[in-house]
Amino acid sequence: MKTRYALNYKGLVFKTEWVALPDIEAHCKKLGIKPTGKAAWAPESDYYTLPAIHDPSTGTYISDSLLIAKYLDETYPDTPRIFPNKAEVGLQLAFVDAFVACVAPAPALAFTVAMTRIDRRSEEYIRRTREKAFGATIEEMTPTGEKAQQEWEKLRKGLDKVAAWYAETDDKGPYILGDVVSWADFVVGGQIMMLKALWGENSEEWKRITAFNDGRWGALIESLAKYAS
Amino acid sequence: MKTRYALNYKGLVFKTEWVALPDIEAHCKKLGIKPTGKAAWAPESDYYTLPAIHDPSTGTYISDSLLIAKYLDETYPDTPRIFPNKAEVGLQLAFVDAFVACVAPAPALAFTVAMTRIDRRSEEYIRRTREKAFGATIEEMTPTGEKAQQEWEKLRKGLDKVAAWYAETDDKGPYILGDVVSWADFVVGGQIMMLKALWGENSEEWKRITAFNDGRWGALIESLAKYAS
Repeated sequence: MKTRYALNYKGLVFKTEWVALPDIEAHCKKLGIKPTGKAAWAPESDYYTLPAIHDPSTGTYISDSLLIAKYLDETYPDTPRIFPNKAEVGLQLAFVDAFVACVAPAPALAFTVAMTRIDRRSEEYIRRTREKAFGATIEEMTPTGEKAQQEWEKLRKGLDKVAAWYAETDDKGPYILGDVVSWADFVVGGQIMMLKALWGENSEEWKRITAFNDGRWGALIESLAKYAS
Repeated sequence: MKTRYALNYKGLVFKTEWVALPDIEAHCKKLGIKPTGKAAWAPESDYYTLPAIHDPSTGTYISDSLLIAKYLDETYPDTPRIFPNKAEVGLQLAFVDAFVACVAPAPALAFTVAMTRIDRRSEEYIRRTREKAFGATIEEMTPTGEKAQQEWEKLRKGLDKVAAWYAETDDKGPYILGDVVSWADFVVGGQIMMLKALWGENSEEWKRITAFNDGRWGALIESLAKYAS
């Protein structure tokens, strides 16, 4: 989602090739796309993740949404900048770290439902790799009952923090820099879009997210919708 | 330290009035200075903290270093801005949250030595309020041995993250925005100065901090020294 936003914002034409989860590693190795880090469930081996892009005009294959964003700003200087001000990149990266901590409870809350959104082969792959490493089933790793309530409360408080950062520029526009969209918004919007896709538009969970912070999160992805296609 | 940096950076003349820890609440109440939140050790009652400033030219008394910084930028628009770009305030606040998480292990590591840096009445006050609420002595709350090593390792990794944000603009200068100082630098510099003051310039601990990240932290407070008086 972050890379999709970035490409559309820059007006760069692209086509999407979907790769099923179990095929990502082989696909990246075949094309010489680098791993992006180590996985929590296999800290010894390289971890290959998408998105990755292939830019035929330079012959570049590159993975990691942040590296892609920097590459696009550098390679296409005449298009709108994902990092509008070079001096701000450090602040943008700190924002992302702070944001990830604020929404930390969200992925686990959506574990079980996520299994219903992917194909059977991907589900089998996720269960095989994660359940063994963590010694628990996906269902056991998904908070329920009182624990779920606590995690929702943490998520609500986390989003309150993020909303307070956004509120500093509310007079100018819906983005963290006010009227100019930037990397931070793509990260936040991408996360919100993921939760919407996982829980489903008509779910209780999605309604809860859209009710938080006076509807800020639904409004943000609305503002970004023009870059989401 | 943050307010001192801010005032000096703006070239605003001030004099400092020191208030001992046990006297802060009464002092603030007397002058009508607002509490800044709730304390972890007394979550039910208002918490009064310093710094606070009195601006005789407007008659304002104001506490909370962030509110003071915003007040100064608004009230003295012809002086250098603590937030150079209004659109960036949200990013700056997110940076501070991320930074605080990165250096979270530091205060506890310095608990015991901090008791040696304050007057006896302040020490008695700190022990009375904190030790009862947390059910442990200051010495027990200070990690030692293997636990201390783990916390130092966390702190080192946290500072690695902060260093990576700073590194994005290293070609321009020592500050998070490169050559322009801003709120984020005052927060980081203030924290580093506090650790230096607590541990002492010749301590093992301070030497460790200055050795991290190729000496970045010592160099940063050097760059800020002109605003530290």
